[in-house]
Amino acid sequence: MINKNNDIIASAVTNLDLHDIARVAKTYGVQTFYVVTPIEDQKQLIKKIISHWITGTGSKYNPKRRQALDLICVKNSIEEVREHISSSGFDYPKIVATSAREQKRNINISRFRELLKSGQPYILLFGTAWGLSEEIILQADYVLEPVKGSTAYNHLSVRSAAAIILDRLIGDFYEYNK
Amino acid sequence: MINKNNDIIASAVTNLDLHDIARVAKTYGVQTFYVVTPIEDQKQLIKKIISHWITGTGSKYNPKRRQALDLICVKNSIEEVREHISSSGFDYPKIVATSAREQKRNINISRFRELLKSGQPYILLFGTAWGLSEEIILQADYVLEPVKGSTAYNHLSVRSAAAIILDRLIGDFYEYNK
Repeated sequence: MINKNNDIIASAVTNLDLHDIARVAKTYGVQTFYVVTPIEDQKQLIKKIISHWITGTGSKYNPKRRQALDLICVKNSIEEVREHISSSGFDYPKIVATSAREQKRNINISRFRELLKSGQPYILLFGTAWGLSEEIILQADYVLEPVKGSTAYNHLSVRSAAAIILDRLIGDFYEYNK
Repeated sequence: MINKNNDIIASAVTNLDLHDIARVAKTYGVQTFYVVTPIEDQKQLIKKIISHWITGTGSKYNPKRRQALDLICVKNSIEEVREHISSSGFDYPKIVATSAREQKRNINISRFRELLKSGQPYILLFGTAWGLSEEIILQADYVLEPVKGSTAYNHLSVRSAAAIILDRLIGDFYEYNK
């Protein structure tokens, strides 16, 4: 990720990133929600949160959370995610990065919907903090157009952006309203 | 709101409810983000969070947050919200409640879009915890259809639901993709 000053950092995972995005992923039938961090403390924290809801007291208190958090898989790097997918019987996945900034090579949602119809696996990549680093975006196979609202303000949280993008991409609302 | 056991409660406001929903509201040109709670401690907490970002150190660290959190207005009750709107030079607002459960009198997004074209003010009402109480839903003028994804799982966070509903309702994505 990058921070406010454009330095490359490993950002902290927050509890609600995991919960909100896992619940959105479950709602839209995403296969796996990979959380990527190279930091050991972060990995421990994530595993602690997940186990509370999957096997701990949280699983009895709210079993619906369990179903969502079950989608989470923690990896050290994007490369490990690709390898994990391709070693699970899928083709080697393509990466679609997201960014709040427009890029010359942006693809739109309709194009991405078309790509998904091939049945090939895709990684839809979100960054926390001030977004994905330029290096990661350059390495991605595609970069999705930013979410635009109805104003010039484009500072959604990663949680909100993920919700809106999955709804636009996978939800059937658009089909009904064509 | 109601809790898991259907008791009527005043749920706790979380920091990220304020940030995420304010940023979504700003993105989609919402006039005011009213946060309703009758609990004094909660009101103080909300004001403390807001002032950190509006006048405190946060306003220098991240001025974009200020623009979003500026939309927040704290009130004791929904009735106070209605009065605040109507005493600000608008017509008396109608209430559109949201719920993850289907209701016989649900209206869909297209219908709500039509209603908004009248220029009348509408309050789009979200509940935290396990949702709005039955009483509140009964008193609402309309109840919006639940957000459906592509699975039977319908347990989005209020933050994700607000993001998706405002995108469907106000965003121009649907217009472009008709």
